[in-house]
Amino acid sequence: MILINIGDELLIGQVVNTNAAFIGQQMALAGLEMDEVLTIGDAEEAIRNAIVSSFEKTDVILMTGGLGPTKDDITKKVVCDYYHRDLVIDEATLQAVTQRFADRGMALTETNRQQAAVPEGAVVLSNSLGTAPGLWIEEVGKVLIMLPGVPFEMEKLIKEEVLPRLQARRTDHHAIQYRVLQCTNITESGLSDLLEDYEKQLPENLSLAYLPKPGIIRLRLTGRGEDAAQLQQTLEAQFQLLKQAVGEYAFADEDKEMEEIVGQLLLKRGCRMATAESCTGGYIAHLVTSVPGSSRYFQGSVVSYSNEVKREILNVREDNLRKRGAVSEEVVSDMALNVMGLLDVDYAVATSGIAGPDGGTEEKPVGTVWVAVATPVRLVTHKFQFGKRMGRQQIIERAARAALNMLRIEIEKDIR
Amino acid sequence: MILINIGDELLIGQVVNTNAAFIGQQMALAGLEMDEVLTIGDAEEAIRNAIVSSFEKTDVILMTGGLGPTKDDITKKVVCDYYHRDLVIDEATLQAVTQRFADRGMALTETNRQQAAVPEGAVVLSNSLGTAPGLWIEEVGKVLIMLPGVPFEMEKLIKEEVLPRLQARRTDHHAIQYRVLQCTNITESGLSDLLEDYEKQLPENLSLAYLPKPGIIRLRLTGRGEDAAQLQQTLEAQFQLLKQAVGEYAFADEDKEMEEIVGQLLLKRGCRMATAESCTGGYIAHLVTSVPGSSRYFQGSVVSYSNEVKREILNVREDNLRKRGAVSEEVVSDMALNVMGLLDVDYAVATSGIAGPDGGTEEKPVGTVWVAVATPVRLVTHKFQFGKRMGRQQIIERAARAALNMLRIEIEKDIR
Repeated sequence: MILINIGDELLIGQVVNTNAAFIGQQMALAGLEMDEVLTIGDAEEAIRNAIVSSFEKTDVILMTGGLGPTKDDITKKVVCDYYHRDLVIDEATLQAVTQRFADRGMALTETNRQQAAVPEGAVVLSNSLGTAPGLWIEEVGKVLIMLPGVPFEMEKLIKEEVLPRLQARRTDHHAIQYRVLQCTNITESGLSDLLEDYEKQLPENLSLAYLPKPGIIRLRLTGRGEDAAQLQQTLEAQFQLLKQAVGEYAFADEDKEMEEIVGQLLLKRGCRMATAESCTGGYIAHLVTSVPGSSRYFQGSVVSYSNEVKREILNVREDNLRKRGAVSEEVVSDMALNVMGLLDVDYAVATSGIAGPDGGTEEKPVGTVWVAVATPVRLVTHKFQFGKRMGRQQIIERAARAALNMLRIEIEKDIR
Repeated sequence: MILINIGDELLIGQVVNTNAAFIGQQMALAGLEMDEVLTIGDAEEAIRNAIVSSFEKTDVILMTGGLGPTKDDITKKVVCDYYHRDLVIDEATLQAVTQRFADRGMALTETNRQQAAVPEGAVVLSNSLGTAPGLWIEEVGKVLIMLPGVPFEMEKLIKEEVLPRLQARRTDHHAIQYRVLQCTNITESGLSDLLEDYEKQLPENLSLAYLPKPGIIRLRLTGRGEDAAQLQQTLEAQFQLLKQAVGEYAFADEDKEMEEIVGQLLLKRGCRMATAESCTGGYIAHLVTSVPGSSRYFQGSVVSYSNEVKREILNVREDNLRKRGAVSEEVVSDMALNVMGLLDVDYAVATSGIAGPDGGTEEKPVGTVWVAVATPVRLVTHKFQFGKRMGRQQIIERAARAALNMLRIEIEKDIR
């Protein structure tokens, strides 16, 4: 199938196309193959050309956007032209729209009435969350599906109306399944070398993809097959082999962020954490609190960007600051231990480093980051040397994820 | 131009296509038109077909993804086939890759070496943040640009290598110039009403575009003309008229982030700032410290995610917490005033709110955020009510930018 997303706002980057990701996920889970996603503007010619060229390549087109009441929403008009059909008022939709407006004490305008106009003969997919219904047109074995672009309306229609209809008309019955293994502390090419033999022995219906992001490489193992149960067995066996081959570099066998994994471990152990951040400037705290429910284990953070704050609030020893410098094992250890006491937590992470672009020296170049993790029974420190050519933002992000990974390792030790 | 994003992970929705949004924004700002965005999988035939069919419609194709060292990255091979060119080792890239590995004390493998292989005759766009360079192939007036799919690598290459080259090869010989005015605290339609008369009087060679992002609308005034000097004069005069028409809603006449603008104001005034953050969880501190040189004015932050930390470290009055709740004007005022004293700064920002998805009540629904700004002479507070349908991340980002904007307004008052 081909997904066509319509909207100028997508082309100029005003809106991130999360609809494509949602639909891609739903189709992948249902074993339906997405061949391509095409994003075009609100222009009649572009929409018409997209329909014509896509039907040369596929039997199913799913379109989102352009169904609203405003004048730049022209999808229905183009579709009627394409199929040589008239727009007719659908009585059930008109009643629903009228009721929706009545509920808010508003009368229906002519523009609103047009929401109930549909191409003659189209199947109407009722939209309980909005005024524009979904539409399904099937002709000579080819299906054109139109959905509103508003995410929550589209999502409900996909799950309740589109997927069951697509499943019902499937002929191949192939299943698609995947598992994700997350790795760290190794480069993409290092991992590729490590997995050379593993990849050679992979069955033909399985494939391995490398999906890197700063400091992390996700390995996605995808399988396709006739028999879903058998595929699951093969996939699971191969996934275990993959874990063995990756060894110590693997840190999670789910596609979760490091901060989610740490959060789950803390909840499991019933413990609380805090951070004391210099070079990461609050980014670790931000990652941790981006997880819903993090208030159950995150107490807070002291971002000590100046030496003054390190000394006055975090009780970092003046002696360490003067003799060792702010970017040192001694200072980062003071920070971790003292924030643990100050914020009354079981685990604390501290960072101090040089994010650049200025401030580097020969002894401590840009990219030098000390991390300390304090636990109820241990203090662990590590010096990271991120590449000199990394940007400031990248050093901050890498340091934050590396620090969370150190924390993860320590909590896991305590759980065992 | 047409953007082609390559990657199975995009088709199955494992990764949201933020690259397309970033590139769309950058092109829109530079006045370059994006005709469509095409997302395809890691398959030779799909890539080849996409190149052929896109070049029937446009002279410029920008491709992202598929340039890494792993075997599912096949873009370079397909491109060589398409152009009937060989893959050759680019010596400068090989040196850079070798150096990158040497910096980390690692030797180069054969797989890494292939990162330096480029289609013969391609212009190499040096990638200082990763091992895969960008590539630019121009033949019979048509350009194919290949960039790595890793966002931060792609972003730097777009800004530093691709945009200048795209601007330079414009053949219309018209000068194109633009100015950006950033506005806030007004809706897009409100701004459109406000600027109705202004837009009517605009000379024909100037156009105004609305480019919204969360909480901010950027107005881009673009001019085209034969004579660059004369164009600049007209553009400048019209930009001043635009500023007058927008009035109080304009906050910056450069396309800079709010945290950069605040930093410049603090430097100008020789003042220091700190934050006390609850619902934003360190995100304001992160934004402020993402600006190079921010240590000159940013002292630090207390992220007080729990009431305990609010009470113990920030001296928020128990009475206010109990009677008013953590999300209240009284608590956020205590936070701002006390962090100002504690961290010895001139300006302090504090936030407390409900980022969701849980924790909302009828009186204080998800999206309620109190912000306080303390200055040497004033305390200003404001309650924001972000839409119920916004996600957690979006509420955090909006609240952080709104808080920085409040701070900007207060510092500007003190400068006048």
